Amino acid sequence: MGFARYLPVLDWGRRYDRRDLGGDALAAVIVTIMLIPQSLAYALLAGLPPEAGLYASIVPILLYAMFGTSRALAVGPVAVVSLMTAAALGDVVAQGTAGYATAALTLAGLSGVMLLAFGLLRLGAIANYLSHPVISGFITASGLLIAASQLRHVMGIEAHGHTLPVLLGSLAENVRDTNAATFALGLGTTAFLFWVRSGLAPLLRRLGLTSGAAGTLAKIGPVAAIAATTWVVWQFDLQAMGVAVVGEVPRALPPLTRPDLSLDLVRQLALPAALISIIGFVESISVAQTLAAKRRQRIDPDQELIGLGAANIGASLTGGFPVTGGFSRSVVNFDAGARTPAAGALTAAGLALAAVTLTPLIHYLPKATLAATIIVAVLSLVDLDLLRRAWIYAKADFAAVATTVTLTLLLGVEVGVSAGVALSILLHLHRAARPHIAEVGRVPGTEHFRNILRHEVLTDPRIVSLRVDESLWFANARYLEDHIQARIADDPTIRHVVLQCAAINEIDLSALESLEAINARLDEMGVALHLSEVKGPVMDRLRRGDFLSHLSGRIFLSQHDAASELATG
Amino acid sequence: MGFARYLPVLDWGRRYDRRDLGGDALAAVIVTIMLIPQSLAYALLAGLPPEAGLYASIVPILLYAMFGTSRALAVGPVAVVSLMTAAALGDVVAQGTAGYATAALTLAGLSGVMLLAFGLLRLGAIANYLSHPVISGFITASGLLIAASQLRHVMGIEAHGHTLPVLLGSLAENVRDTNAATFALGLGTTAFLFWVRSGLAPLLRRLGLTSGAAGTLAKIGPVAAIAATTWVVWQFDLQAMGVAVVGEVPRALPPLTRPDLSLDLVRQLALPAALISIIGFVESISVAQTLAAKRRQRIDPDQELIGLGAANIGASLTGGFPVTGGFSRSVVNFDAGARTPAAGALTAAGLALAAVTLTPLIHYLPKATLAATIIVAVLSLVDLDLLRRAWIYAKADFAAVATTVTLTLLLGVEVGVSAGVALSILLHLHRAARPHIAEVGRVPGTEHFRNILRHEVLTDPRIVSLRVDESLWFANARYLEDHIQARIADDPTIRHVVLQCAAINEIDLSALESLEAINARLDEMGVALHLSEVKGPVMDRLRRGDFLSHLSGRIFLSQHDAASELATG
Repeated sequence: MGFARYLPVLDWGRRYDRRDLGGDALAAVIVTIMLIPQSLAYALLAGLPPEAGLYASIVPILLYAMFGTSRALAVGPVAVVSLMTAAALGDVVAQGTAGYATAALTLAGLSGVMLLAFGLLRLGAIANYLSHPVISGFITASGLLIAASQLRHVMGIEAHGHTLPVLLGSLAENVRDTNAATFALGLGTTAFLFWVRSGLAPLLRRLGLTSGAAGTLAKIGPVAAIAATTWVVWQFDLQAMGVAVVGEVPRALPPLTRPDLSLDLVRQLALPAALISIIGFVESISVAQTLAAKRRQRIDPDQELIGLGAANIGASLTGGFPVTGGFSRSVVNFDAGARTPAAGALTAAGLALAAVTLTPLIHYLPKATLAATIIVAVLSLVDLDLLRRAWIYAKADFAAVATTVTLTLLLGVEVGVSAGVALSILLHLHRAARPHIAEVGRVPGTEHFRNILRHEVLTDPRIVSLRVDESLWFANARYLEDHIQARIADDPTIRHVVLQCAAINEIDLSALESLEAINARLDEMGVALHLSEVKGPVMDRLRRGDFLSHLSGRIFLSQHDAASELATG
Repeated sequence: MGFARYLPVLDWGRRYDRRDLGGDALAAVIVTIMLIPQSLAYALLAGLPPEAGLYASIVPILLYAMFGTSRALAVGPVAVVSLMTAAALGDVVAQGTAGYATAALTLAGLSGVMLLAFGLLRLGAIANYLSHPVISGFITASGLLIAASQLRHVMGIEAHGHTLPVLLGSLAENVRDTNAATFALGLGTTAFLFWVRSGLAPLLRRLGLTSGAAGTLAKIGPVAAIAATTWVVWQFDLQAMGVAVVGEVPRALPPLTRPDLSLDLVRQLALPAALISIIGFVESISVAQTLAAKRRQRIDPDQELIGLGAANIGASLTGGFPVTGGFSRSVVNFDAGARTPAAGALTAAGLALAAVTLTPLIHYLPKATLAATIIVAVLSLVDLDLLRRAWIYAKADFAAVATTVTLTLLLGVEVGVSAGVALSILLHLHRAARPHIAEVGRVPGTEHFRNILRHEVLTDPRIVSLRVDESLWFANARYLEDHIQARIADDPTIRHVVLQCAAINEIDLSALESLEAINARLDEMGVALHLSEVKGPVMDRLRRGDFLSHLSGRIFLSQHDAASELATG
């Protein structure tokens, strides 16, 4: 395939026809209308000027359309990544300064380079190391944090912080300064948007629209709220009553920008960029795979990394901030009939048109409206029932979820997601460290060997036969040592230990050393260690070391051979 | 058992008799003689005054004798932990200051509290999460670092640093200042000690000693070197020629000391203390288990944590520094006939006697001699052949070892061991993320189902039967999704997918969500998902969620039931 494998556009582009264009164009119009308020809102959430949201939606979408493999994924600023951006930048530079916007470019650039590198190294499987409950818990906690952070715009007060206690404390401190006009506007918009979500779609369906069309119309409801509140502010001069508005937005295409790549800043942002990359990738790939499955299409995770990497590098060079594939916009894109990534390219064109024509219209757009759209969007991500489901299903999963939710709320997004991932891995190691080991005996009249605890079987007091039901590796190797030691220590009649290895697919170097230790210890007690039913690849590997030359016993082709030869021997 | 389970001394103490005392007393005499130079040397390595080494060997040994479960383990300062101590303290306070010794107490105290907490929480399995090759690689690299750090004493020059490049650069810078008398003495001692190790034992055996006695005598060879060089320095006034000596050592029992528990220091030392605790525990438990196995005794890892925790808390309260079970001293103790932990108590008494009587004698002990004993001791830990063995055995193990060795040498002990542990876990996840999945068909004339790639079997084009050979959990759940998606996407004749679950011992919440996603996606393609041979505990857990109510297909008791009913259905 050569370099073409890195450019999926060359594949679908050759077959592009009028039917594709029809579907893509309609989807692009709807997604553009939906993305304008979303882009402005997520820029606000990230602590950036509103135009950054538009810029982050134009070039990144184009680049993803060239490099990505999903036919329906819509790339741009999303809620959780915008929150992580604000948290990362807040630790480094003061919001509102020129350095803040430049640092956002750096963050997007670093994230883009990391994603690209992961993709070229074919590390698409990295998404697998994050357990679903940890991700869901993280998104739930992030949703709560985002909603709390936007309350200040709805109330028209000052507040700061990236953790729930600081945010709420800060809100409580300034609650007396609440601006009545802002609060009325914000509360009204929030209520309207909740009604659009829950009440409008059913209403439209009763009026005869199809379910898909009603859902799509409901999803562009924020546009109506924005138009209405902007008009109200302008008409009744609410600015004079203290309602904060978006203000002057440059009427321009995305500018060419250069991220600040000073070593100091890069070092400070490297870890947040890595977390943003991984979380963004996991969110994006889940959406892409869900949508692809609906049309029996396939997603290449490695190429997705490259697509998202290109999109983020594009964002960093054109005045944006970190982006990824968004859930709701991708679903809208899919439902509206997008057939190829060209829908994304057309969306980018639509947003570019908006950036040069519509920006004067949003001068009077109140920040409270944007905050309301964010709150309504993110509260749909909050799934506290997850805690209950995890508790019922398995305590280990609950521990991982509860830790992630609690630490994200109390200590921030970076600590929360890192701790959740680390804990879920440790809990897995903890469970995996105790492999299932069954002592087996022969089923009378057959050559089959079964667990002596579950079946009536024949055994020989001088021979202990153990079946290990998992591959041997460092976390469970010592357990096997202890298990055998415990079985042998108190029973001086034992002369032979046979490990039935049929279920062992791999023995790593730690486990090999454990086998050597077991062999040496048994040898000192006058007990021989034998193996039976060793798989071919495992045997090949064992031959590379000198374990077999030290082995006190023998290798048997079958457990039956082992039992019968040792019994007569 | 009540509290007595935490005091193994109550168990073995009740049965203690004259025969035990004989063995223990002889072992104690030999170990005491061996420990005097070792204790002084490891204090030097940790950057502490020599008496700290003696103090760290007295009360900790006593406490371990009360709380530990090993009959032969000898606790005290060891090379790798002393190096880690120097590295941790060097980042925080300047060597030679009063704050340095106090910080060493803090480090021992923190480590003791952590070990105790791990023990009470029954986390003895924590040692399993460190792969053997990573530990061996770390010890090898530490040995090289220690040897390099001691060269300055052998040469009588200044040098500093906790990484190989800094140490060697620093040595190269000052090599012109080499003190001739010191270098002659240091080199001579090193050569003598190497000869003791490699030449003396065979010589003694030829003179008629048993192999064990010859080995033990060879191991106390350093005492002869110390006596001889001390006498030479005193007799010929080598101090005047620039030979650095140990100098004034207080003639006293271990003092009562109070570690500095200021929040700032605790925060700085918490991570190093955790690493020291885990590495120390892993070293100690390996030695203890090896020796216990030789006498068919058992070690309780949780109680070992408590024993080591008590020993380190003791060290922090009596002028010591972090301690753990040492390999060579424990082997000497065992070979010399130690029968119970009382041998340790007697060793402590011997060392206390030495501390109040022998300390004036070591005034003229040259530091070069101590450095020589350290170099000879640690070079026996260096096992660079490990890299070759790991390379031959498995590339993943090699990657973990090579990373550990390289980063320990280049960036220091803390980065090295952390990176090695993290990489070995990631490599395991990487391998575990691809479970073995076999497509199965019926062996003609039987009810058995086997891999279609390996056996002549009967299949139905409408039914895909997959046998998953591992438990399903977050790292491999997505692989199953992809695998099924890939198998189904291009084959529109498929109507049923059957997962044969006989080898699945566990399904975590991530995997459950993947099964739900698989079920939903297949459903949209008009394919039903069925399960067969689900184990009881897995079935119980599945019933707790609502997966079964969404399942598009059925649950079959056996794969044969599934295949025959779906074929006719």
